[in-house]
Amino acid sequence: MNKTDYIIRQIAKSYKKKYENYVITRIWHLLNNSDIKFVTQQHITRPTGRALTDMYFPQIQLHLEVDESQHFNADGSQVEPDIVREADIINATGHTIKRIGIFAKSLEDGIERCVENSIENINQQIDEVVDFIQKEIKSKIDTKTLLLWDIEAEYNPKTYIDRGSITVDDNVAFRTIADACNCFGHNYVGYQKAFAKHAIEEKMLWFPKLYENEEWENEISPDETEIREKKKSDHKAYFDKAKSYPDNLKERITFARVRSNLGDVMYRFKGVYKFDMPASEHAGKIIYKRTSDQVKTYQPINYE
Amino acid sequence: MNKTDYIIRQIAKSYKKKYENYVITRIWHLLNNSDIKFVTQQHITRPTGRALTDMYFPQIQLHLEVDESQHFNADGSQVEPDIVREADIINATGHTIKRIGIFAKSLEDGIERCVENSIENINQQIDEVVDFIQKEIKSKIDTKTLLLWDIEAEYNPKTYIDRGSITVDDNVAFRTIADACNCFGHNYVGYQKAFAKHAIEEKMLWFPKLYENEEWENEISPDETEIREKKKSDHKAYFDKAKSYPDNLKERITFARVRSNLGDVMYRFKGVYKFDMPASEHAGKIIYKRTSDQVKTYQPINYE
Repeated sequence: MNKTDYIIRQIAKSYKKKYENYVITRIWHLLNNSDIKFVTQQHITRPTGRALTDMYFPQIQLHLEVDESQHFNADGSQVEPDIVREADIINATGHTIKRIGIFAKSLEDGIERCVENSIENINQQIDEVVDFIQKEIKSKIDTKTLLLWDIEAEYNPKTYIDRGSITVDDNVAFRTIADACNCFGHNYVGYQKAFAKHAIEEKMLWFPKLYENEEWENEISPDETEIREKKKSDHKAYFDKAKSYPDNLKERITFARVRSNLGDVMYRFKGVYKFDMPASEHAGKIIYKRTSDQVKTYQPINYE
Repeated sequence: MNKTDYIIRQIAKSYKKKYENYVITRIWHLLNNSDIKFVTQQHITRPTGRALTDMYFPQIQLHLEVDESQHFNADGSQVEPDIVREADIINATGHTIKRIGIFAKSLEDGIERCVENSIENINQQIDEVVDFIQKEIKSKIDTKTLLLWDIEAEYNPKTYIDRGSITVDDNVAFRTIADACNCFGHNYVGYQKAFAKHAIEEKMLWFPKLYENEEWENEISPDETEIREKKKSDHKAYFDKAKSYPDNLKERITFARVRSNLGDVMYRFKGVYKFDMPASEHAGKIIYKRTSDQVKTYQPINYE
């Protein structure tokens, strides 16, 4: 996938909501900078579940919401659910959120109406967001902390090996299990299993489906600090085997098998999780607690 | 309908073709001028039928085509049908056409492939078109010949009364028959019939469906210089009656009943047409030939 393809496919996701398509394309075209990545319909973890934001800029951790709601409070402010949702997202992620309002309340002949904003007003709101993004980008450039969007490098293990680590905030996902393994000393061409040994440290590499599937009842907590694993058949035997692992193999560098928001299967870094015996005994499931949201990467050691 | 509504609805027509949506939104957002009108999927008359262009700027008579074709000649030039079509449109209308190419031929390892252009290349092509449009606009401003886009005025008879005339090139369409009549001395609130007398000159005002319908077999020639009318039943009686009109009532200021490209019924000015007896006798249909593509407008005379 090249950038043309990626951008066109991201924008195409907004066709169902006509104002969203307008806002997203305006921001992208006015930013006019193909070093800046964006994602549409970005999944966000919230304490009470998940949410989607309309547009997300991972390099500056900014979300954008196109507010097509025609419901306002008497004083013209947003209705409660939107505000709660926004606060939730900010609390859960530390990210910033900006909103573009499509409708406004107007008082005409003493009657309150909800009217579409003028195109000039909508454009001005968008232009303010574009200014904000450009300032954020500039400040990242000034402090040399901006990673330019490189769609090839993004999926290439070498990028993360050179960087020395992978962190959850970098939102790293690989196309294959082999690519993920190759960040930890391996040099695989292909690898299919959901487990691999770390080539250097005494840890496991794990590629689970963190949702219910044929064999497993797995889940991850909304804040992603806890993974719960249960085998549908023969859970007890599996549990006993898990308990018998030496301590250093109970720690798992975890890449969850996910669908990317363009629909492709990918393996997304979730953190390092450790088997928690008391919690597991108590829950009747195997509980892993996150011990780190960052992991060291290694050059391939070429013994394979 | 306000401009927000109009623009969003015009852009929404491009959702079926993802590159088109990208190009159209980029041009609109970079022009960044809500005085400039655009139309997507603009109907164009050609000698051999009709065509649609992807984006049209009526103020400067510029059409834009997003070329998603993956077929090229051996030398990388466009295939024949596109070129013929383009020449047709230019010949039929005198308008300008610009093209944005999405794909290009590439020679890799001696093998010819058709590859998507880079996003930077596509953007550069679009930006050149935007520059061109801005120069055209500027030159119209300099010569004081730019009519700013005013969505209210556009459908208001007063605009054309003040201007003193309506011409085919202005692409004028009214929402109602009454609005059209009111450009010629009338002061109607409502009017439903397909005929009206000019309030001042001895001409008719005509609002036909120029396509086959329940009662009529009507058509307009591709170059719009000739209208052919045939009543499905009792054509002879109708023909005889038409012949008996005095000469000065055989001239018809014609607004065709059309669907606007947003789907609304409208009455679009086509020109002044005159009943042509020899051609009609010969064709067995009533033939009207266009005598003018411009017509004088009048203030309401308030006798109604």
